[in-house]
Amino acid sequence: MSLPLTLHPDRLFPADEASRAVARALYAEVKDLPIVSPHGHTDPRWYAENEPFPDPATLFIVPDHYVFRMLYSQGVALEDLGVPRRDGGPTEQDSRKIWRIFAANQHLFRGTPSAMWLAHAFHEVFGVRERLDADNADRIYDQIDAQLKLPEFRPRALFERFNIEVIATTESPLDELKWHKQIKTSGWQGRVLTAYRPDPVVDPEFPGFAENLVELGRITGEDTTSWRGYLAALETRRAYFREHGGCTSTDHGHPTATTADLSPKVASDLFDKVRSGSFTAHEAELFRGQMLTEMARMSIEDGLVMQIHPGSFRNHNPGLLAKFGRDKGADIPTATNYVHALKPLLDRFGNETRLSIILFTLDETSYSRELAPLAGHYPSLKIGPAWWFYDSPEGMRRYRELVTETAGFYNTVGFNDDTRAFLSIPARHDVARRIDCGYLGRLVAEHRLDLDEAQAVARDLAHGLAKKAYKL
Amino acid sequence: MSLPLTLHPDRLFPADEASRAVARALYAEVKDLPIVSPHGHTDPRWYAENEPFPDPATLFIVPDHYVFRMLYSQGVALEDLGVPRRDGGPTEQDSRKIWRIFAANQHLFRGTPSAMWLAHAFHEVFGVRERLDADNADRIYDQIDAQLKLPEFRPRALFERFNIEVIATTESPLDELKWHKQIKTSGWQGRVLTAYRPDPVVDPEFPGFAENLVELGRITGEDTTSWRGYLAALETRRAYFREHGGCTSTDHGHPTATTADLSPKVASDLFDKVRSGSFTAHEAELFRGQMLTEMARMSIEDGLVMQIHPGSFRNHNPGLLAKFGRDKGADIPTATNYVHALKPLLDRFGNETRLSIILFTLDETSYSRELAPLAGHYPSLKIGPAWWFYDSPEGMRRYRELVTETAGFYNTVGFNDDTRAFLSIPARHDVARRIDCGYLGRLVAEHRLDLDEAQAVARDLAHGLAKKAYKL
Amino acid sequence: MSLPLTLHPDRLFPADEASRAVARALYAEVKDLPIVSPHGHTDPRWYAENEPFPDPATLFIVPDHYVFRMLYSQGVALEDLGVPRRDGGPTEQDSRKIWRIFAANQHLFRGTPSAMWLAHAFHEVFGVRERLDADNADRIYDQIDAQLKLPEFRPRALFERFNIEVIATTESPLDELKWHKQIKTSGWQGRVLTAYRPDPVVDPEFPGFAENLVELGRITGEDTTSWRGYLAALETRRAYFREHGGCTSTDHGHPTATTADLSPKVASDLFDKVRSGSFTAHEAELFRGQMLTEMARMSIEDGLVMQIHPGSFRNHNPGLLAKFGRDKGADIPTATNYVHALKPLLDRFGNETRLSIILFTLDETSYSRELAPLAGHYPSLKIGPAWWFYDSPEGMRRYRELVTETAGFYNTVGFNDDTRAFLSIPARHDVARRIDCGYLGRLVAEHRLDLDEAQAVARDLAHGLAKKAYKL
Repeated sequence: MSLPLTLHPDRLFPADEASRAVARALYAEVKDLPIVSPHGHTDPRWYAENEPFPDPATLFIVPDHYVFRMLYSQGVALEDLGVPRRDGGPTEQDSRKIWRIFAANQHLFRGTPSAMWLAHAFHEVFGVRERLDADNADRIYDQIDAQLKLPEFRPRALFERFNIEVIATTESPLDELKWHKQIKTSGWQGRVLTAYRPDPVVDPEFPGFAENLVELGRITGEDTTSWRGYLAALETRRAYFREHGGCTSTDHGHPTATTADLSPKVASDLFDKVRSGSFTAHEAELFRGQMLTEMARMSIEDGLVMQIHPGSFRNHNPGLLAKFGRDKGADIPTATNYVHALKPLLDRFGNETRLSIILFTLDETSYSRELAPLAGHYPSLKIGPAWWFYDSPEGMRRYRELVTETAGFYNTVGFNDDTRAFLSIPARHDVARRIDCGYLGRLVAEHRLDLDEAQAVARDLAHGLAKKAYKL
Repeated sequence: MSLPLTLHPDRLFPADEASRAVARALYAEVKDLPIVSPHGHTDPRWYAENEPFPDPATLFIVPDHYVFRMLYSQGVALEDLGVPRRDGGPTEQDSRKIWRIFAANQHLFRGTPSAMWLAHAFHEVFGVRERLDADNADRIYDQIDAQLKLPEFRPRALFERFNIEVIATTESPLDELKWHKQIKTSGWQGRVLTAYRPDPVVDPEFPGFAENLVELGRITGEDTTSWRGYLAALETRRAYFREHGGCTSTDHGHPTATTADLSPKVASDLFDKVRSGSFTAHEAELFRGQMLTEMARMSIEDGLVMQIHPGSFRNHNPGLLAKFGRDKGADIPTATNYVHALKPLLDRFGNETRLSIILFTLDETSYSRELAPLAGHYPSLKIGPAWWFYDSPEGMRRYRELVTETAGFYNTVGFNDDTRAFLSIPARHDVARRIDCGYLGRLVAEHRLDLDEAQAVARDLAHGLAKKAYKL
Repeated sequence: MSLPLTLHPDRLFPADEASRAVARALYAEVKDLPIVSPHGHTDPRWYAENEPFPDPATLFIVPDHYVFRMLYSQGVALEDLGVPRRDGGPTEQDSRKIWRIFAANQHLFRGTPSAMWLAHAFHEVFGVRERLDADNADRIYDQIDAQLKLPEFRPRALFERFNIEVIATTESPLDELKWHKQIKTSGWQGRVLTAYRPDPVVDPEFPGFAENLVELGRITGEDTTSWRGYLAALETRRAYFREHGGCTSTDHGHPTATTADLSPKVASDLFDKVRSGSFTAHEAELFRGQMLTEMARMSIEDGLVMQIHPGSFRNHNPGLLAKFGRDKGADIPTATNYVHALKPLLDRFGNETRLSIILFTLDETSYSRELAPLAGHYPSLKIGPAWWFYDSPEGMRRYRELVTETAGFYNTVGFNDDTRAFLSIPARHDVARRIDCGYLGRLVAEHRLDLDEAQAVARDLAHGLAKKAYKL
């Protein structure tokens, strides 16, 4: 007999009654605010075509690196989870079999955010009332699978049901924004924006960089073999993204937070070098750093908010990369320095009130030591929410405890779900709201904040700050 | 209508009732202990001349980098806050207007220690009973301003009212200690000591270093163009500070914790180099490191307690530095290594029981990894309290949680307020006492410490350890 | 009059009643599970000879670096604590006098795990009911001393009384495992295994490395002057340890986590170099790194679980080392990088499901940033429990909070006591069980885990995971 799946109304609130009572009251006021998702990786095609999502395994397991990396870490082969091989070699095609492996290994997810997100989606979206296990795997598979075929489970219907006020996707400057245009002309009222992620054309170590520059020249009509033409092409695409994709932000996923502020001559020479394909790792790093500063300059001109997401050692596992490709759970955080790394950019533009840079980190030691002091001083800097591995109850608590005393709440920007997993979006925002209300509840219970202040902050964290910071 | 300003008697105690009840009982026994302020930056002139403090804005906003940096981070110009420009250019002169900006932006300080310190001063010192906001800004301004003119709000009266047993200021070796002498001869009983801060004459990168050496020679009669004469001059001034300023400690604010133990010949050559003004950044660093070891030697001889405050990247914002000068909220912490950095000094003097070095950090990762293991072994090392950005409720809690298990309580030294903001001193000590009692309360509630032990520790943390560690 | 010594039944559980109630219930189910001690440093001779332990000071103070380092840090000379000098010079020989110093300084241990471990041993093993202090020092000394002479306080009797299911000691590959053999042939049923710690023969900077290689050749009959012979000798000893010591694991205590994967030719040349005694620090580091990869290869072949314990700056205090030798409380943690350091080994063997590497750290910043993401991906990696300075209530709490959300519980391996202090073993396991139950209690109280899940995890953390991870 399976066990009941429940979502307790007090979940994630502090265990002590004094804090919890305040948290509960605060949460009641913010839980139904619309979702603002200013940064993420859902596929705009879903909203454009509005086709049904596939079966449960293909929806919840095969594309979710949080899920399959945990199973892989315990010895389950990615082939058995249906993760496609780059060489097209055999992998499990039977979604039900994949689902059963997942069901039989639920204990691995105990205490992880994945467990909470999945429970939330199963319970709230699909009405599942049993905890998934080896015995009920098929029954729950069928229950979800059947609903996925219904019109009210198509992307647009879920978008509305999730009460999403606006969502941003992320595209390369080379993207023509076909799906965004299709959404716009479709008559559907859902607000789906793009964000400008130039890594493929500003990172010399990005696969296909040289070809990408050629393509960038082709679609903009600029001479991308020259530094000036290259910059003009990037600006042209920013304008295009603003016009055709409602873009309000850029995003930069560099391995470090390095910035540079080279003279035009030196920058131009460096560009020639990286364009030629013959450059050192240091030169690649320097070029990426220079491009952050160039992007800051463009942001001052066109108003796009900059996001910097540094510090991931991508594709740490070369064997896995060769077999299965990128984004397979093998991206590992590294210690990240901001104080020295950002200085060239800040020396140039740090005091610009027209510039807004949102800094993220995968190195929690930087919250109180670097990010909060920087954002608590420079008018151009804000701190993004707890990111990736730290988009989790404990991660968010540490974030508030480490950031708030130095940077306050108003140098932060609300929540990002940053996800490819559409079904997890309501769960993730709900976790963030609960944790923030819990943190505020403790401040009130400890008489460090008055209740009316906590109420105002709770609304800002759940809704207002994201809209303001991302100009939505 | 404005909202009431209250200071809840249980503020800052843990939210759970078991810990809170113990915290409350412990706090009752320490709250009225006199304040020992063994390290800080108040101006001795205040106590010497005993002139009234100026208006509310000039007292609370213009000189407080915690306050104006937060406003600056949200786009308020420092000129509008009356922060003086180095070129004498125009800045706001109307204190009331400055106050109004501050009042209208109180939400920025929610959850920060500044909010607590200000509320405490407003409530306890000036009897303010409304929460400051845009509407009551003028009324509260007037209320504070009127009191500042009264005799009982002059520095000495407040010193006594604050129950300050002893306070240390911080002076350069070039200071003649005029104000300290004036205090001593004035007949007033307040105990105000100096601390010896030699950065201007031991840091080759300090502005005016060469001139400072000349001046050091002049006032000591030593030949500060020679290494031996230079050391003798520093010793002479230490003796002067002990004799004329009641000095019991030195203070060293280097960018890192680097120490060195060079041979006299090499040290002498290095001195010649840095004195000439032609040296590398590495040589400057090495010289500062050597001087820490020289100061340790002198401390063994004359008994002055050493404080090392490393790890701040001072003046990170060159535009701001050029316009407004030092100490404008642009000092950013950096990752700081102690284990390797202190080794030369410790290899020489680490086992000296006559030596007492108090280590501070702006890198919280070093608490449990480096500082507690070092202080829990070397007889010459103690750990200073949570410093600067971490002189805050969460910062102090993390400090105790990270330090105590390895170093115990008795390798720590009580609280430092380390402040220029005289009016915040009672608030800061009160916060520290409350947080320490809260931490002890939790240990008792978790049956990790008996109540009588917690009572003894609470008294030591609030009063006894500071007196002992600083030889006061 | 002395104060009562009590062990509260709720000690170490969270202070809030909701979490505590669950913790209490969980703990009731695991408190009597047998102790699995898969890694530690007790002396196998104790179990082989079963001689009485000596007097209280020689048992609790003289060999325990946690205890004497704290006293040393407060100015007590190690000579006065009876710590033997390398030169055979005079040290205190009167155990009672040593005990009195310890008794008079109990306040130094407030809030430390040593205080809890000692209280547990005094109370549970010796029935002491007074808190040790200067007044009752002699009385408690006598009480313990008298019992130590009784048969039921000999090692084997205590082993059984402590309910130890299995314990591992740690030996050099040069050890003949005499005591393990003696235990095995004695007829006693206690299960005592060895672990293979090759530092003396794989670390070129280990004292006596060259002689150790000669000895390794002698006992294996292999030509340890050649790279191939050397590797064969190490393999021969692994087989010997498995056969004669029940060995299931190896242990590697390198200063960093550096690994290397050199070609056989380069490795062989490097071996010749380090064997010659003429090598750089970098070459020593590289050789140690290569040996970790060689050991991983051997582990895949023979199934021994690898433990890596990196990051201690051993013997930081050269004066103390010269006078008293190693392991005297002067080993200081350092920042440790895993992401880059482990890559050569992981590139080669990271995806091997037959390989199990347990990673430890003295740098808590790596828990959430590096270790949990690595272990949550690579099938060959697991995370060892909170180690050394962090084998403490707060240390274990931070560990669970920082590790679980990314790695789950099942990429961790239960508890290690890792101790030389036999009498502290029950206390240490009890602390770990209480803290884990407290953490789980909070997850249940916050509705992040169902009670039945917490019950299963509590059992696994207390018993099952250690057995499985160490193949016991």
